Amino acid sequence: MQSAESVADTAEVTETSERIIRYFEDYVPGLAVDCGSFSVNEEQIIAFGEQYDPQPFHVDRDAAEKGPFGGIIASGWHTTSLMMRQVVKHFISPESSLGAAGIDEIRWPRPVRPGDTLRVTATVLEARRSQSKPDRGIVRSRMELVNQDAVTAMTMTAINFVRARPAGA
Amino acid sequence: MQSAESVADTAEVTETSERIIRYFEDYVPGLAVDCGSFSVNEEQIIAFGEQYDPQPFHVDRDAAEKGPFGGIIASGWHTTSLMMRQVVKHFISPESSLGAAGIDEIRWPRPVRPGDTLRVTATVLEARRSQSKPDRGIVRSRMELVNQDAVTAMTMTAINFVRARPAGA
Repeated sequence: MQSAESVADTAEVTETSERIIRYFEDYVPGLAVDCGSFSVNEEQIIAFGEQYDPQPFHVDRDAAEKGPFGGIIASGWHTTSLMMRQVVKHFISPESSLGAAGIDEIRWPRPVRPGDTLRVTATVLEARRSQSKPDRGIVRSRMELVNQDAVTAMTMTAINFVRARPAGA
Repeated sequence: MQSAESVADTAEVTETSERIIRYFEDYVPGLAVDCGSFSVNEEQIIAFGEQYDPQPFHVDRDAAEKGPFGGIIASGWHTTSLMMRQVVKHFISPESSLGAAGIDEIRWPRPVRPGDTLRVTATVLEARRSQSKPDRGIVRSRMELVNQDAVTAMTMTAINFVRARPAGA
């Protein structure tokens, strides 16, 4: 388990090969967790686009080549969803997650293209215990997705409700 | 076509039974567009959750009933993706859409549960022509999703790049 004592003051990526159970107390500002990486191919991008975001540059190869990005790019919602899979696996714990209040400031500075591999890092920005319900707190975290060329493709700030560590856990 | 002259100063929902082609000039602050509604069932919620957001309250009916929401709820990313389908159909035009810079402030004040029907409204907050590229502009819009009980389930602010109307269009 990640304890407060082992957390660096500045962002430092912690490899998480095994699943770590985290409670509110473990989300200490400065904790940075490597959430692994994912790749996405053209077939997946088009399938997601057809279902949820059928703009030409997500679903139509010919139109996309003539369009603003010069080719197919992933829907931003596809990228957030694929990111979430990594975050659930490496950063959030089912033992403590009480859902999200929302998201602040998603940015997509670089398109995600077929064949890209994105590494996901989650860094705790702020952790505040609830005044009214001291068995939980609010954790603000910044997610960053960096592609195989070391270019940031997405950043995001998530606001999550997290259960505090129960006695004996 | 929606012209600036026909746009109300305050938010007023415009029904869009037919597809309307919009360019930058048409996204006038105060324009509010009814983007229709969608429903989501338990099978769809679990399928999305298993693929992208496998937290117990999205994928496991028994665990969800004992969990913080008392039952299965949709991943917030599922809700944003289903919203996007409505926005692409009713608010964005393939003729002018140049993608999104990002999103500000998603909030999920009420969970989306199996069987819910969400109505999507998009309201233009701000439209600013690019100084460096006057053939386009940036449009900030607020999306609101209201469920069958008239409760707001999601709000979001999107930041989109939009092409200006070409000569003769």
